[in-house]
Amino acid sequence: MNYRMISYVLGFVLKIEAALMALAIAVALMYGEQSAWALGITMGITLAAGFLMGLKKPENKTLHVKEGLITVALSWIVMSLLGTLPFFISGTIPSYLDGFFEVVSGFTTTGASILTDIESLPKGILFWRSFTHWIGGMGILVFVLTILPISTGHSLHLMRAESPGPETSKLVPNMAKTAKILYSIYFVMTVIEIVALMIAGMSLYDAAVHAFGTAGTGGFSVRNSSIAAYDSVAIDTIITVFMILFGVNFSLYYLLFAKNFRQVFKSEELRIYIITIIVSMVIVAINILPLYSSVAESVRYSTFQVGSIITTTGYATTDTNIWPQLSKTVLILLMFFGASAGSTGGGLKAVRVLLLFKSSKRDIGKLLYPNTVKIIRLDNKKVSEDTISGVKTFFFIYLMITAISIFLVSLNGYDLETSATAVIACINNIGPGFGMVGATGNYAGFSEFSKIVLSIDMLVGRLEVYPMLILFIPSIWRKA
Amino acid sequence: MNYRMISYVLGFVLKIEAALMALAIAVALMYGEQSAWALGITMGITLAAGFLMGLKKPENKTLHVKEGLITVALSWIVMSLLGTLPFFISGTIPSYLDGFFEVVSGFTTTGASILTDIESLPKGILFWRSFTHWIGGMGILVFVLTILPISTGHSLHLMRAESPGPETSKLVPNMAKTAKILYSIYFVMTVIEIVALMIAGMSLYDAAVHAFGTAGTGGFSVRNSSIAAYDSVAIDTIITVFMILFGVNFSLYYLLFAKNFRQVFKSEELRIYIITIIVSMVIVAINILPLYSSVAESVRYSTFQVGSIITTTGYATTDTNIWPQLSKTVLILLMFFGASAGSTGGGLKAVRVLLLFKSSKRDIGKLLYPNTVKIIRLDNKKVSEDTISGVKTFFFIYLMITAISIFLVSLNGYDLETSATAVIACINNIGPGFGMVGATGNYAGFSEFSKIVLSIDMLVGRLEVYPMLILFIPSIWRKA
Repeated sequence: MNYRMISYVLGFVLKIEAALMALAIAVALMYGEQSAWALGITMGITLAAGFLMGLKKPENKTLHVKEGLITVALSWIVMSLLGTLPFFISGTIPSYLDGFFEVVSGFTTTGASILTDIESLPKGILFWRSFTHWIGGMGILVFVLTILPISTGHSLHLMRAESPGPETSKLVPNMAKTAKILYSIYFVMTVIEIVALMIAGMSLYDAAVHAFGTAGTGGFSVRNSSIAAYDSVAIDTIITVFMILFGVNFSLYYLLFAKNFRQVFKSEELRIYIITIIVSMVIVAINILPLYSSVAESVRYSTFQVGSIITTTGYATTDTNIWPQLSKTVLILLMFFGASAGSTGGGLKAVRVLLLFKSSKRDIGKLLYPNTVKIIRLDNKKVSEDTISGVKTFFFIYLMITAISIFLVSLNGYDLETSATAVIACINNIGPGFGMVGATGNYAGFSEFSKIVLSIDMLVGRLEVYPMLILFIPSIWRKA
Repeated sequence: MNYRMISYVLGFVLKIEAALMALAIAVALMYGEQSAWALGITMGITLAAGFLMGLKKPENKTLHVKEGLITVALSWIVMSLLGTLPFFISGTIPSYLDGFFEVVSGFTTTGASILTDIESLPKGILFWRSFTHWIGGMGILVFVLTILPISTGHSLHLMRAESPGPETSKLVPNMAKTAKILYSIYFVMTVIEIVALMIAGMSLYDAAVHAFGTAGTGGFSVRNSSIAAYDSVAIDTIITVFMILFGVNFSLYYLLFAKNFRQVFKSEELRIYIITIIVSMVIVAINILPLYSSVAESVRYSTFQVGSIITTTGYATTDTNIWPQLSKTVLILLMFFGASAGSTGGGLKAVRVLLLFKSSKRDIGKLLYPNTVKIIRLDNKKVSEDTISGVKTFFFIYLMITAISIFLVSLNGYDLETSATAVIACINNIGPGFGMVGATGNYAGFSEFSKIVLSIDMLVGRLEVYPMLILFIPSIWRKA
């Protein structure tokens, strides 16, 4: 294990985190808040830790797959451990574990909260809380790669471990350049959303935090009743559109930019993602019609909630706990479905579900006509059997971790709906579930043990299982 | 499609069903019940249908895989359609659809019931109801194969389609002989249980119906409160032991009989099955301890319920709805786990779960060390990659059907616990779930549409997906 190189990268990650914290400090100072101190002290500690860890430059810069995975997992954990300090030092979240849960929820773009009264927190602190969504959405290591000079081969390991989806492809041969393109798209789209929300009537501050929550498909709001607090059709519409846009594979935006429209329209994942949204929206709109005064209203709430859940954002404009079971079941299934690979969204990802269906169809054909050989294609390109097998294994491990987590969270003794959807909402990085953790509820009532389990689930979901999983394999840590 | 051969086999199945009905008629006559008429008329109709369908002997006796699967699916459907008549003609279940649900539940050894007052039904009818468990447990086509002269190659298709597990192996080279051995073991074990239950105080009638329910891992009782009605430690113990025994792969009994003890102890599936039972039993016993007066009582109820659920029987000695969520979650997970391959139990089967874990472990290793090649072994024998891939595909399709069914059953508007566990309890052939379909509830409240969905789920579970699935593929029915 190349500990020195891992420590070096971790140090770099912390320095970036400290730098990003400056923005939250600026906000706190602008509002003349005491919380600037808590953020400032944290920045100092983070910077110091970053320098200490990166003190010794590694001679050997090789990162094998195993080390790449561990680096990513540890980066996210260390980043969260330090990102918790502003809440802890300022006393806004007195329990360190609660704060850790909140920050992991932020970085992993989950949006599950232990806060019972969000609006009582200082603006600087809430800005940091929402900013973690933005940082975590595209990934901190992807960001690091835009700056840190690591050879393409090794940086691909890091990017693969952090980027969602069964296959990570470079947009351009150079890794750092790919990362820069992705971050530019991310940045520009976020700015456009901020402007749009301001035109719709939000203050710059509100627009920024909600754009961060949308861009990272996170879901933290600064209002207790989430987006419902604004009760504005314009704001609902803007956020719905941007949630769905941020749930699309970012490489498609690059293709659009490169005027390669044909390849964008050929994308089977995009098609299945859009079709799933429309079909779910229609089913829910019809099902909830009796609860609302008009078809337009029913469509408004259906579209927002469907868009929010499939992209794994978790914003709410209504309490879905009172919806009929059919709509709730649709939302639970969408939680697993998730957004697209290469987006900021969580869940299994549309392309995985698509490949699972394609390979099942193939296997049924093989059962009926054993002598035929059929190749699975995606966007007219052959998909390797290794990828198919990998997706199937991913599906099993993902559900096993979900099942084991539901078992562990059941120790709280809460009902099945609460226990199961808490885990489902955390591992798929959504945030609100149903029952006690519904749109108007929160995670405050869970035991410390459950909060640890759910924090791990959020990281498992965001990092797509393997980086977190191998931390628990003892043989990994043994000397070769 | 060799329709004539399919019709010929179906006819044979119906003749067997008619013959088996004679036993129920005898019981009805013994008790001097009017229900003998309903059973007698059904027997006549079934026999006539059987003769008509088998009238033209097929010249071409070939059954390809596809036709084998269809034959099995249609056999079970036709068998159930006619098996419903005694309930319908006698008026004991006035709705034909309700009766169909009950009989499918019987043949598939599910044990889900729409009856609200079981004890009000005549003894002959209830005998037939429980006898369907026994017939369905080992499989009607396995029975047919002991008599019908089909070449081994083709009969293997039928047996494979009906027998649970990822691989079907012949005990002896001859197929008919294999089927005979399996049925002999089944018959002898059932008789031993009947005798044991009589010694424990049951009447011959009660002992027989409950032995049928245990042997088929079905779960129909003649008492409204299931096995709790007897409140006897001896009866609880006998049924617990036999449930667990009938959940073991029957080929192991053959090996025991052949004094091949080493191979029995080497069986990894047996080990994992036993370990899962013990671990679950201990967790539940500790968790429910506060509800019962002593450790002994807690162990008694824990063991029975765990044994009942993992073997997918569904008998109950207590209302698990009042158990704490942890125990309920354990039971839900056990529902999916299921019994062993080659047993009469349902669910995914221990060996599939085992292979999924083994292949996941292998794939994680491959991810970390891409250049290593590792072969998966079970009982020291190499498992083919086709089998592994098949198990993974099975897992996905199985859960997809579960998810779609939960969506469809949610149309009833019942809570998540009821909707989800109804489907889980049906597709895994258990019977009772939680909420409205808990141990003291039933399926009477569901819509007709839900009852059809759940009936299909029961068949999907019993026949392990493919025979039922291909019925819904249009291209299957097109002429080649």
